[in-house]
Amino acid sequence: MINFETTPERYKHWKLTVDGAVATLSMDVQEDATLGEGYKLKLNSYDLGVDIELADAVERLRFEHPEVRAVVITSLKPRIFCAGANIYMLGTSSHSFKVNFCKFTNETRCAIEDASANSGQRYIAALNGTASGGGYELAIACDEIYLVDDGNSAVSLPEVPLLGVLPGTGGLTRLVDKRKVRRDRADVFSTLAEGLKGKRAKEWGLIDDYFPTSKFQESIAARVKSAAESGAQSKDARGIKLHPLQVEASNDGREYKYVSLKINREGRYADLTMRGPESDLPTDVEEIEKLGDAYWPLQAYRELSDALLHLRINELETGLVCLRTEGNIADVLAVDETLAANKDHWLGREIILHMARTLRRLDLTAKSFFALIEPGSCFAGNLLELALSADRTYMLNNPDEKVELATSALNKGALPMSNGLTRLGSRFLAEPGRVDEVLKHNGTFDTEEAEEAGLVTFAPDDLDWDDEIRVAIEERTSLSPDALTGMEASLRFAGPETLDTKIYGRLTAWQNWIFQRPNAVGPQGALTNYGKPTQAQFDFKRT
Amino acid sequence: MINFETTPERYKHWKLTVDGAVATLSMDVQEDATLGEGYKLKLNSYDLGVDIELADAVERLRFEHPEVRAVVITSLKPRIFCAGANIYMLGTSSHSFKVNFCKFTNETRCAIEDASANSGQRYIAALNGTASGGGYELAIACDEIYLVDDGNSAVSLPEVPLLGVLPGTGGLTRLVDKRKVRRDRADVFSTLAEGLKGKRAKEWGLIDDYFPTSKFQESIAARVKSAAESGAQSKDARGIKLHPLQVEASNDGREYKYVSLKINREGRYADLTMRGPESDLPTDVEEIEKLGDAYWPLQAYRELSDALLHLRINELETGLVCLRTEGNIADVLAVDETLAANKDHWLGREIILHMARTLRRLDLTAKSFFALIEPGSCFAGNLLELALSADRTYMLNNPDEKVELATSALNKGALPMSNGLTRLGSRFLAEPGRVDEVLKHNGTFDTEEAEEAGLVTFAPDDLDWDDEIRVAIEERTSLSPDALTGMEASLRFAGPETLDTKIYGRLTAWQNWIFQRPNAVGPQGALTNYGKPTQAQFDFKRT
Repeated sequence: MINFETTPERYKHWKLTVDGAVATLSMDVQEDATLGEGYKLKLNSYDLGVDIELADAVERLRFEHPEVRAVVITSLKPRIFCAGANIYMLGTSSHSFKVNFCKFTNETRCAIEDASANSGQRYIAALNGTASGGGYELAIACDEIYLVDDGNSAVSLPEVPLLGVLPGTGGLTRLVDKRKVRRDRADVFSTLAEGLKGKRAKEWGLIDDYFPTSKFQESIAARVKSAAESGAQSKDARGIKLHPLQVEASNDGREYKYVSLKINREGRYADLTMRGPESDLPTDVEEIEKLGDAYWPLQAYRELSDALLHLRINELETGLVCLRTEGNIADVLAVDETLAANKDHWLGREIILHMARTLRRLDLTAKSFFALIEPGSCFAGNLLELALSADRTYMLNNPDEKVELATSALNKGALPMSNGLTRLGSRFLAEPGRVDEVLKHNGTFDTEEAEEAGLVTFAPDDLDWDDEIRVAIEERTSLSPDALTGMEASLRFAGPETLDTKIYGRLTAWQNWIFQRPNAVGPQGALTNYGKPTQAQFDFKRT
Repeated sequence: MINFETTPERYKHWKLTVDGAVATLSMDVQEDATLGEGYKLKLNSYDLGVDIELADAVERLRFEHPEVRAVVITSLKPRIFCAGANIYMLGTSSHSFKVNFCKFTNETRCAIEDASANSGQRYIAALNGTASGGGYELAIACDEIYLVDDGNSAVSLPEVPLLGVLPGTGGLTRLVDKRKVRRDRADVFSTLAEGLKGKRAKEWGLIDDYFPTSKFQESIAARVKSAAESGAQSKDARGIKLHPLQVEASNDGREYKYVSLKINREGRYADLTMRGPESDLPTDVEEIEKLGDAYWPLQAYRELSDALLHLRINELETGLVCLRTEGNIADVLAVDETLAANKDHWLGREIILHMARTLRRLDLTAKSFFALIEPGSCFAGNLLELALSADRTYMLNNPDEKVELATSALNKGALPMSNGLTRLGSRFLAEPGRVDEVLKHNGTFDTEEAEEAGLVTFAPDDLDWDDEIRVAIEERTSLSPDALTGMEASLRFAGPETLDTKIYGRLTAWQNWIFQRPNAVGPQGALTNYGKPTQAQFDFKRT
C-alpha cells in the first residue's frame, strides 16, 4: 500500500531549506530509495515516492512558510538537473499505475502553478545541468527557467524519439499553451532526443535565460532576490505546522477524524462520509492560527485528499464512491462565513485554496461519484460542492424527515473547477440565470426546492430510496470501467478549456492511448526495449 | 481500396429530394449493400459507405442547391430513425479502421454544422422512430430535433452500457457543450441503454419537441416551412454541378489534374504536390459560375480532400506527407483576390468555405506533414496555408534561385482552423503582433525574410538541402507512429478550444484509448461479445 504522507524530516530525495523569503528545493535522488522494486533512480530520475515528497514540500511551503516569496528548484547532482520519470519503473508498471502516476505528478505541477498564481510564491527553475523529459516538464511548470551554459547541459523532451510515448506531465501542452513556443519549433524540439542548449533554447522560448557556469549561482541569486522582493506576500505572516494525519487503516477502509472511508470490496464501491465541523469553532483568525491544522476545513479536506489518493492508487477495483455528509448545516455555513470574512488573510486564503485543490482532485478522480443526501447530512456551502462534483445526486424526499441543502459565499467562485468555472456555473451552462437564483435563495433548500432548482438528479421517496440506490449502485458498477472513465472525463468539464483541462482531458487521454499501444508497451515496444540491446520494432500503421 | 466519391444517382442508402427551399435526406439503408464483409446493415445502422453518401449529399446541397434553406433528415424505415454505427462492423474492424471511420463520420457531422452556421442551410432531424447511438449523434449535429411520440420511440446513447465504448461521433461533447444538457442528466442518459422518450427527452433538453404519430408529419412540415422562410439564402442562386473527379490511380499514387500524390512505400512517406492555377482565370463571378467545378480553387481543393481521405484510409503505413506546390505566385494571388472580392456571392463564399474545410481535414489528418518550399513553388495566399498547416516547413536558401512566399486577404480569417484561429494566429500566439506584420509585408517574402518573419522552420542552403531533407524524412518515419499522432494532436491546436477541437482532441483520444482496451475489444470485451450469447467479462480495475 502506498502512503502519500511525509514530512521534510523524512525526505529521502529532496532538501528543503528556507531563508527568509527564499526557499530552496534541491533534488538529490537516492538511487536505491525506490518505492517499488527492480529499478534504480539514477541521474535524478524519479518515481512516485520522489514526487510525493515534492508535492508535500509545495503544500507545506504555503502553510508553514507563507513568508516565502521565491522558491528555487535545483539539483545537488553535478551536471544533471533531473532525468524525468524513471523509464525502468514505467516499463515495469501496470497500465493503471502509469496512468495514476502521471495524474499525481500532473497535480503536483499544477499545484506549483497554483502557488505561484494565488499565493505569491514564485517558482524559479535553476537548471544546473541537463533537464530531460519529466525534468524539463518540472522546469516548465515553474515561472522562470534558467539553464547553465557549460557546453553540455540541455533541455529536452526525448519521450517521442526514445521511448515512443508522450511527455506525460503536461510538457507538450505547456510548450505551446503556456510558453507559446511556435508549433513547428515545438515539433522539432519534441522529436530531438538530445534537446537544445542555452542559446537556441532561449531563442525558441524554452528557457528564459542561460548563464556560464562561473556566473550561474550569482545570476540565479540576483534573479531570486528580485523575485523575493517583488512578491505580494506579507513578510510577517507566520506559518502553521502541518502535522501527520491520524488515520486508522484496515482492510475495510480508513477512519480519519472527519472522513470515513469504507470499502465494499464485493460490490466494488466505497462509502465516503465527511463529517461537518463542531459548532464552537473560532471566528477570529488569530484563534484559528492557534488551532492550526486542527481547524475543521483544513483537517477535513486534508483527510479527504488523502482518502482520494488512497482510492486512486490502492483501491483500483473500486469503481464508484458514494459521497455522504454528517453534521449540522448551520455549523458548515458558520465556517464558510468565517473563511469568507478572512479570505484576504493568508491563512484564510490558503485554507480556501486547499479546499479548491482537493475538490479538483475529486473532479479528476477516475471513479464514479454519487452523492447521497439523507437526513442528518450537511451538504452546505463548501460541502455542497461535493454534491455538485458528483456525477449524480440523489436526495431523499420524505415529508416526515428534514433533508436540506444550502449555499454559502464559497459557492460563488472561491472553489473553481479546472475549467475555471464554479460548479454551479458548469451545472447551469444552459441557463446561467439559475446560478444567481440558487445563490439568492432564502435559507435552505428542502428536497422539493432542491429538485425544482436543478440541484439534484433524483429525489426518490422513502419507500423507493433503498431500492433505487441499490439498483443504481449495482448498475453503475456493472459497466465497463474504461468506458465510464472516458465518459466522465467528457461530461464533467463542459464549457471553457484551460491549461489544466487540456492537460488532464486531452493530453492525458492521448498518453493513456499510447500507454496501451504495442509500439510502446508490447514485447518489441520502445518503452519495453529502452536500455536493452534490442531495438524497438514498430507497426508503422498510422492511426 | 475505399473510394470516397459518389453521386446521388448511385446512392444506395439515402434519398435526396429537393423541393424549392427544402431538401429532404431520407435514410433507407440497404442491409446487404455493405462496404465490407461479414455484417448486415440492419435497422438503418451504418458503415463508412453509408456515411460517404451522407457526406456527399451535405456537400452537394451547398454547391448544387444553394437555394435550399432547410434540410430535413429523416428515415424511410417504419419506427426506426437510425441505429447508429453497425456494431458487427465495428467489432470486426481493425483499430485503425475504427479510428478513421469515427474521424470521417465526425467530419460529416461538423460539415452539417458548418453548412448551418455559414451557408444558411438549417438542418432539422425528424426522428420518425428511435434514434440510438450514432443515430442520435446524427440528430444532435442538426439544429433542431423532433421525435415522434408513439409510445415506443426514444433517443439513446447505449454505447457505454451495451458496448463498453463511447459514443464515437461527438455525442458526449455535443450533449454538454452544444445542447448544454445538465451534466448529471447527461450522465444518466449516457448510461441508460433504452434511452428516453418524448416528454422527459424534451424536459432534459435532448430534443426540441415531440409530436404524436398522427401529427408528426404536419408538425415537421410547419417547422420546416418556418425555417425555410427565415433562412438567409438568396432564392435565385442557381447551383453548379459537382462532377466526378478525374483521377488516375496506380499502385504508386494518384494523379489528379491539380494534385499529384506519389507514395514512397519503402520510405513510408508520400509526396503531395498541388499545382497552382492557370493565369487566365476569370475574375467575374458569372463566368466563374459557368466554369463551375472546373474553377481551380474548387477543383484543386476537391482533389486535395480526396487525396487526404485516400491517404488516411488506404495508405496506413504512410507516416509522413511532404507538401509541395508548383506554379506562379501571382496566379494564386489573383485567384485569392477574385475570391475575396466575391466572398458575399454564394459561390465565392462556398468555395472559400470548402477550402477551409479541406485545410481543417489536413490539420486533422494523423500523418506528419513537412512543407518543402523550393524554386518554382507557389506557397501564396490559400496555398501558404498548406505550409502553415505543416508540422515543419523547410525553405531553400539559395541566392541564385528565387524562392518566395506571399500572403493574401484569405490568410486574414477566411480559412480558420478548428480552434477558431487563423493559422498565422495559432503560429504566433506568443507574439500576436507578428500576424499583422506578416500581413502588412510589402510584396513577397524571400527566404531570409520568411525566416526572419517566423514563417519557416529551417532554411538550409542548396549545399545542405538534399541531405537535410533526406535525414529529416528518415528520422521522422523512424519514430513511433502512435507517439507522433498524440504529439501532433497536442501541438497543432494551441490556444482556444471549440466544440470541434474538443471532439477531435479530447473525445477522440478517449475513444481511441477505449478502442484499445480488452474490456471493449478483448475476447471477453463488450464490443466483441455484442449480440453473442456470452456476456462480456470486465477487468474492473479503474484507470
